[in-house]
Amino acid sequence: MRSYKKLIEAQSRNNSKLCIGLDTSLDLIPSHFKKDISSIFEFNKQIIDATCDLVCAYKLNFAFYEQYGSKGFDELKKTFDIIPEDVLKIADAKRADIGNTSRAYAKSLFEYFGADAVTINPYMGFDSVEPFLSFPDKLVFLLCLTSNQGAKDIQYLECNGKPIYRHVIEKAMGWGDEEKLSFVVGATHHSELADLRSIAKKQVFLIPGIGAQGGSIAETMKANAGGTAIINVSRGIIYCSKEKDFKEQVRAKAIEYNALLNQALV
Amino acid sequence: MRSYKKLIEAQSRNNSKLCIGLDTSLDLIPSHFKKDISSIFEFNKQIIDATCDLVCAYKLNFAFYEQYGSKGFDELKKTFDIIPEDVLKIADAKRADIGNTSRAYAKSLFEYFGADAVTINPYMGFDSVEPFLSFPDKLVFLLCLTSNQGAKDIQYLECNGKPIYRHVIEKAMGWGDEEKLSFVVGATHHSELADLRSIAKKQVFLIPGIGAQGGSIAETMKANAGGTAIINVSRGIIYCSKEKDFKEQVRAKAIEYNALLNQALV
Repeated sequence: MRSYKKLIEAQSRNNSKLCIGLDTSLDLIPSHFKKDISSIFEFNKQIIDATCDLVCAYKLNFAFYEQYGSKGFDELKKTFDIIPEDVLKIADAKRADIGNTSRAYAKSLFEYFGADAVTINPYMGFDSVEPFLSFPDKLVFLLCLTSNQGAKDIQYLECNGKPIYRHVIEKAMGWGDEEKLSFVVGATHHSELADLRSIAKKQVFLIPGIGAQGGSIAETMKANAGGTAIINVSRGIIYCSKEKDFKEQVRAKAIEYNALLNQALV
Repeated sequence: MRSYKKLIEAQSRNNSKLCIGLDTSLDLIPSHFKKDISSIFEFNKQIIDATCDLVCAYKLNFAFYEQYGSKGFDELKKTFDIIPEDVLKIADAKRADIGNTSRAYAKSLFEYFGADAVTINPYMGFDSVEPFLSFPDKLVFLLCLTSNQGAKDIQYLECNGKPIYRHVIEKAMGWGDEEKLSFVVGATHHSELADLRSIAKKQVFLIPGIGAQGGSIAETMKANAGGTAIINVSRGIIYCSKEKDFKEQVRAKAIEYNALLNQALV
């Protein structure tokens, strides 16, 4: 099934715009797990079991797995494999390189890991993004305006009266329609989010920055103006409890976020 | 040893600015190798054996290994482990993300794989680069002006009369001295390379784009004006022969590139 359609159906079925970010690190999971790399998959499995009817997507942040090398990659692959087929699987890998290299990354993310969607860095331009777009059913999330402080350094530089992140979104909207090309826009910039939504009404926005990074739900949802959005929460949900019953706590926290997100829409 | 010092010593010892890019793909290695993932390491080992006294660095392009998943990561790690300690090992991974994620990537690249240097994408700004800079002995190559056609899309946008890639280099020169922070500048843009060299006289430039991508050696070396540079050639060397004696051909090709590069310096 086309990733875009899968997303829309999951949002409707689970009445959820929530994406849980599996930024899993051995140092941060509850202490009753063995201090062993295999616990990464065990932890992820419990999070997925506890929440897969409450979310529209899971986002797997590759860095947290790569820090453990090939064994981490195994835990990541096993995690991809158990995410239910009707929920979007986002490979948060922020790749991009010259054409033949991006093609190899696309093979890794879409074919080996089986991701439905990927995050891609726009700095190298169209021919570095095109190999990902050439997979017909997949969704590409291009970094537009990121949630971190460093976004100011390059993304806010002005060219012809418009910041670079706005050039990125305007250019990239010519590279594919809303069922192929979507954008990462951080929840920590509300007026910019509103501005971007005004020019990209139909595109999916993947919005990180709620929770640990400090973005406000109410202001984010207002700025998003009812557009198709995936709201990512990672640490704020997966590490909300260190106790043996963390699974119930995680489920309760996901329900709470869903309620806050849906309430903010009204 | 500090990576910068290792580079300078290797360039002097081997009288070489050449870096060989190990963009190893099962489809492209000589047909006498088994069609099995373990051939990736076997091929790399032969290339390294044939050339390690002729180069200053090897560049390992992560995409080509990641396309084979965790087994590819194993071949990559084994390759890192056999590169002689006195030659620079560059992890060409083009990572960068928010702080805690970049820290995990830095652990992967510097601690797990044991890279001396990494390539980093500047789009997310200082706090996405800082976790790599915080490893005191390592060298960070920030993408400045890339060799591909798509460089025109974002990197050439003008802000206050200067293209974005020039803002990147000017800002980043404040983030670390030349023993920590260096830049990727493609060989396909000679006048821009000369301009960048005029403002970053001491910084190391990692220059891809010679060979398969069409950059001219003579013009590149002239534009570089004698600055510290690493000239990368990947496909033009490692795939120069498909025959059983490819090792000798690869060595001859590396000697030929070295001669051309050193000749162009005079």
